[in-house]
Amino acid sequence: MIIIGELINATRQLIAEAIEAKDNTEIKKAVIRQIEAGAKYIDINAGMGKGQAREISDMEWLIDIVNEIGEIPICVDSSDPVVIDKCLGRIKSADRMINSISGESKKIESLLPLIKEHNSCKVVGLTMDDGGIPSDVEKRIEITEKIVKTLEEAGIPRENIFIDPLIQPISVDVNNGKVFLESLRAINKEFPGVKTTCGLSNISFGLPNRRLLNRYFLTLAIGYGLDSAITDPVDKGTREAIYMAEALTGRDEYCMNYIKMFREGFFKTKDKK
Amino acid sequence: MIIIGELINATRQLIAEAIEAKDNTEIKKAVIRQIEAGAKYIDINAGMGKGQAREISDMEWLIDIVNEIGEIPICVDSSDPVVIDKCLGRIKSADRMINSISGESKKIESLLPLIKEHNSCKVVGLTMDDGGIPSDVEKRIEITEKIVKTLEEAGIPRENIFIDPLIQPISVDVNNGKVFLESLRAINKEFPGVKTTCGLSNISFGLPNRRLLNRYFLTLAIGYGLDSAITDPVDKGTREAIYMAEALTGRDEYCMNYIKMFREGFFKTKDKK
Repeated sequence: MIIIGELINATRQLIAEAIEAKDNTEIKKAVIRQIEAGAKYIDINAGMGKGQAREISDMEWLIDIVNEIGEIPICVDSSDPVVIDKCLGRIKSADRMINSISGESKKIESLLPLIKEHNSCKVVGLTMDDGGIPSDVEKRIEITEKIVKTLEEAGIPRENIFIDPLIQPISVDVNNGKVFLESLRAINKEFPGVKTTCGLSNISFGLPNRRLLNRYFLTLAIGYGLDSAITDPVDKGTREAIYMAEALTGRDEYCMNYIKMFREGFFKTKDKK
Repeated sequence: MIIIGELINATRQLIAEAIEAKDNTEIKKAVIRQIEAGAKYIDINAGMGKGQAREISDMEWLIDIVNEIGEIPICVDSSDPVVIDKCLGRIKSADRMINSISGESKKIESLLPLIKEHNSCKVVGLTMDDGGIPSDVEKRIEITEKIVKTLEEAGIPRENIFIDPLIQPISVDVNNGKVFLESLRAINKEFPGVKTTCGLSNISFGLPNRRLLNRYFLTLAIGYGLDSAITDPVDKGTREAIYMAEALTGRDEYCMNYIKMFREGFFKTKDKK
């Protein structure tokens, strides 16, 4: 499981305040905790709705803090291609990720030259297009095909493409979870080599007890072959779900990780009757 | 989710002692707790390795206790067709289940006349035959076909057939979980109308922290379309997994059950960081 740590996000109050105060302590702490908890990439989202120039300077400030800690793979997370363009080259690690492209023509047009230039990057592709997020599996697969074709032509190898089939809340339509899971299965089957990822928390929007719902949905998604998640690895429940689901679906050889974590006292849940 | 409550099993010390002492208090308690926790059927297994006559008289005694509580659907669980034959008619409820037939020729021969006679019964069919438990999905589907054909010819309608594709421990082969899940998917696809069930706990045999592993595996299995489980509904974690997985996979309309249980304070898990 490739974990993309989601904590450095300016929509979180703690991070917004640290950015405002130019206080790097909280940022450093959140980066190190995520790495220690198994994050492979640190996602950085500096969007606070204060304009492009501000987003760029905040993103640069955040990247510099991560660079100081070490050569840590970073996922540049912005809806603005200019922000991605300006900031990507600043990352110290050669392992970088762009979050995200989609099937939207405007997005493809503006990001494609940049992706061609940086074609050793990993790229997250969202299964939405000019018509929005499709409600069915078939249309998501069509968009996946378009994104994979576009990216491969731009020189991105398949294994560097991370398709996010977009989770929508079950509170809006109870079939939304199933549509996402079936999309995962179809992508794995029809585009071997292409990876899948997702932002988990949307599944539980509008419902109580969100963390627990997210954790169970992560379990189900691993069962359907999910390769990666943009999530909070510091959350113990999230990691529990990953260790459990990987052992139970044959992705943890001889259950070695599971047994190692058990021996380290990681699993402490008591069953209540 | 059709829960077959597994607690009335003579291999459990508490039940064995109650049988020995002819003390019906513990038995009654275990039946009522399971019903209150959502069990549709009460599985009764009286096998203590003390011979056929003793198994029959113990089974009868246990059935009588359940009958006293009310018209409760019972699942007669024995590897001995004679025990099933002698005890099935004693159940007060018209909704009865036989656990189990398989693809083994001897089992089919000895159980088939009985099944023809009681063809309003539900029947559990295990995907094993004279060659044992197959290690692959394909062979399990072949055996399923044989069982479904045999039972349909005996007058059992499809919706009363519960196929158990047999969970084997991941500690023996890390792919055992995946083989079971893929078998579920294949049965649902190739035999629409036929139900699936399983005994969960075998998945975690030989590993620590078994209850938690079982709960996560139940989640994964519901994701793959499991209709029923022979399990302990009194275990809160088991029910949590069922409510969660059903809401997340579109099996709980408008998430009504989930929200109801939340309002009743069922979900109390705190997330630890």
